[in-house]
Amino acid sequence: MDSRSGPGDNGPFHPTRRHPTPFTMPTTSIRSLLAGDVPLGSTVTIEGWIRTRRDSKAGLSFLQVNDGSGFDPIQVVAEASLPNYQEQVAHLTTGCAVAVEGKLVPSQGKGQSVEVKAHRVEVVGRVDDPDTYPVSAKRHTFEYLRTVAHLRPRTNTFGAVARVRHALSMAVHSYFHDHGFFWIHTPIITASDAEGAGAMFRVSTLDLANPPRLEGGGIDSSADFFGRPSYLTVSGQLNVEAYCLALSKVYTFGPTFRAENSNTTRHLAEFWMIEPEIAFADLDDDADLAEDFLKSILRTLLDERGDDMAFFADRIDKDCVRRVESFVESSFERMDYGDAIKTLEAAIDRGKRFEFPVSWGADLQSEHERYLTEEHVGRPVVVMNYPKEIKAFYMRLNDDGRTVAAMDVLAPGIGEIIGGSQREERLDVLDARLDESSLDRDAYSWYRDLRRYGTVPHAGFGLGFERTIQYVTGMANIRDVIPFPRTPGNADF
Amino acid sequence: MDSRSGPGDNGPFHPTRRHPTPFTMPTTSIRSLLAGDVPLGSTVTIEGWIRTRRDSKAGLSFLQVNDGSGFDPIQVVAEASLPNYQEQVAHLTTGCAVAVEGKLVPSQGKGQSVEVKAHRVEVVGRVDDPDTYPVSAKRHTFEYLRTVAHLRPRTNTFGAVARVRHALSMAVHSYFHDHGFFWIHTPIITASDAEGAGAMFRVSTLDLANPPRLEGGGIDSSADFFGRPSYLTVSGQLNVEAYCLALSKVYTFGPTFRAENSNTTRHLAEFWMIEPEIAFADLDDDADLAEDFLKSILRTLLDERGDDMAFFADRIDKDCVRRVESFVESSFERMDYGDAIKTLEAAIDRGKRFEFPVSWGADLQSEHERYLTEEHVGRPVVVMNYPKEIKAFYMRLNDDGRTVAAMDVLAPGIGEIIGGSQREERLDVLDARLDESSLDRDAYSWYRDLRRYGTVPHAGFGLGFERTIQYVTGMANIRDVIPFPRTPGNADF
Repeated sequence: MDSRSGPGDNGPFHPTRRHPTPFTMPTTSIRSLLAGDVPLGSTVTIEGWIRTRRDSKAGLSFLQVNDGSGFDPIQVVAEASLPNYQEQVAHLTTGCAVAVEGKLVPSQGKGQSVEVKAHRVEVVGRVDDPDTYPVSAKRHTFEYLRTVAHLRPRTNTFGAVARVRHALSMAVHSYFHDHGFFWIHTPIITASDAEGAGAMFRVSTLDLANPPRLEGGGIDSSADFFGRPSYLTVSGQLNVEAYCLALSKVYTFGPTFRAENSNTTRHLAEFWMIEPEIAFADLDDDADLAEDFLKSILRTLLDERGDDMAFFADRIDKDCVRRVESFVESSFERMDYGDAIKTLEAAIDRGKRFEFPVSWGADLQSEHERYLTEEHVGRPVVVMNYPKEIKAFYMRLNDDGRTVAAMDVLAPGIGEIIGGSQREERLDVLDARLDESSLDRDAYSWYRDLRRYGTVPHAGFGLGFERTIQYVTGMANIRDVIPFPRTPGNADF
Repeated sequence: MDSRSGPGDNGPFHPTRRHPTPFTMPTTSIRSLLAGDVPLGSTVTIEGWIRTRRDSKAGLSFLQVNDGSGFDPIQVVAEASLPNYQEQVAHLTTGCAVAVEGKLVPSQGKGQSVEVKAHRVEVVGRVDDPDTYPVSAKRHTFEYLRTVAHLRPRTNTFGAVARVRHALSMAVHSYFHDHGFFWIHTPIITASDAEGAGAMFRVSTLDLANPPRLEGGGIDSSADFFGRPSYLTVSGQLNVEAYCLALSKVYTFGPTFRAENSNTTRHLAEFWMIEPEIAFADLDDDADLAEDFLKSILRTLLDERGDDMAFFADRIDKDCVRRVESFVESSFERMDYGDAIKTLEAAIDRGKRFEFPVSWGADLQSEHERYLTEEHVGRPVVVMNYPKEIKAFYMRLNDDGRTVAAMDVLAPGIGEIIGGSQREERLDVLDARLDESSLDRDAYSWYRDLRRYGTVPHAGFGLGFERTIQYVTGMANIRDVIPFPRTPGNADF
């Protein structure tokens, strides 16, 4: 089955699959039933959790049951003639687990095509004290739900976030696989502390209360697990470059870390990043890849998770589907950093006000990026060739001697979404940049080797995965788009 | 394109793609050319690295060029009439990067179907001192190659390992996606130190040389980044259970950590693990999933990476392809732990010798597992229902009160490859098991919540990804199946 056409049937993975309940029919996913994959009139078994129960005067109950396979629950009609109706069914509450065997019939109600007329409802797991169920059917704030991160995936919002996250993840892998890239598992623990991308967490097995000391009183890191100070990685880029210069097209997709004390809606201490790297490629190729890749994974998201995206548009951010559709249909503008500065200066001349000053040599602030992509161009824009002073040592020096082949992809509604560059492939230029940046050549000897032996032009970029999810869903706080967020003071669950 | 039918064309990802070389044709992957995707007689451009150069007496050179897209290089025929033949082409050595434009023609040589008759050979990156090129064309030991882990993917063996690793990774994601599972990114940093699965790395931002102290002299962890001691995870299972009880079918695929001082060919401090978790499922369902999943991903590997697997069979482990084929075609035996013990005791009675004693209540040692799967059954076997004393607290207590619903999947040629269990879904039984294990109920309050609210039978397993790669390739040392291995004393690169 085409992995990009949507998730497969939620049904049995094996023809002999039994389930712990004594029903004879294999379980079907609610998503499949609602999608019309099963003929009307069939006897079906579903397993899931009660969203709501509504009792009719006619002496029957309507159960909304969801199994997480899609956004929408299915309605189960449970009549009073069921043997356990009075004792069990009529007392079902939000969160109770049930298995239902019944007939798939056209729905009488609005907003759903089919429902299940129950022959049998088995209560698998109860909610003992419904009044204190932490994720009861009433509205809860996202702030509160963060305190019950183990239960929040049962809510509409966080179930939808989890499915969107999965769909985008799978789209990332499928895109790269289909285009001949190899996924490289770059290391999480690193002894390199000099990448300069931010504060790092130290990883250690030493007894913090009583670590071995050197004569001068410093820590004897030779006694630590790796024989020297080690840290959590801030990026897999340098490592994946080594594989790029052997396999041509590679990418990372894994957790990265920042030990910065940032309590904002856009920062996590632990977040996932996607970093492709392509050989025999320059900055234009890199921008081509970024555009094609982003549009492709967002198109897949729209195709696969229309149910969840409709919810986000309805309840979280009414523009989100339109924003993603427009992104997918747009053609990215390309703009030189120098032209971006001129554009901003011209805007100021016309009366536009920015908080931060604009001048050649300064980094673009979020307000500038938003102006360029939202007001000036009105679609995504790739700003290219930044001053070398504000960019990392590994970015390729342009012929002008003062800019590097760096790019940022800016998008309406978010600003910077991707940062990338062509890498400096010339050893002598790289060495000069290391020296300028006061970095030790010896610490980069293996990285320099890549330029000594069969070096080629190559380029890549980084995409913060959580910010991408925020962008498409409109979820305001980054803590709400990762299952168990890690932030200053919080490593709960 | 079906993501399970093989990687896509290695060609341009965008119709306007340029490349930094001045050639007019877009680049084609060598894998595509060898697969016959391009008509004979076409003008093609390839970009890659020289494996070997052989000069013919007729005044031309045969260049073996590889771009990492597949195992096999393509032969480029470079005639002396090329303008840069004498000065450049005739001096190309292993590892040099080239771009070649030429005509795709039937090959004269043996072992290849097509070759490229070069119109033009551009040297993109040289190897300055070929005599000291660390991964020259001669044979190198794996031990040596670990010291040049940044260059080893350029060798036949490590290029093949990287492609096999990718193919299996993608097969894992495709299998789960096609079966309605969601990939859940469980946290790497955890404040839970009580999972009991092994020694943990501490993660900290405190100044090790001078940490803040409590009055009694202990470390004041409230001043640490997360406000308390935190660690690198040993498993995502407990976290992913929370998502299982909302989305029904979920899995993790990410790095996990052990701070054990194990210098063996089977242990890494940082390794990748795959952990599916299914709701409304018992131990039999878990075994069904394990069997179907393992056979599916190995079948995909054989389909996609015949080139690399042929190399492993030729050079590393002559049985590897046969072993994987036989695995894929087998039907797994299921055996109760009690019967496994009886089988081993009967073997001892018949004169079989084991190093470790066999008795009900003792864990199976590797030699026992190998006997069961290789000699007794002759195919994979799932041993089920182990004594509770030797298994983790979260495994479901069986009705006999002395065994738990745990399983190990044993396979010929490796022994244990998967460990899993049905989880204890009954709060009172779980609490009793926590108490028996001297674990603090409060530390597991969120995990216990999952049993208080809509609990359901559920099950899952863990597959060590590196051991799976070792199994299929025959690579003897686990350090050789991950790009940059982390082991005691080593966090290089």
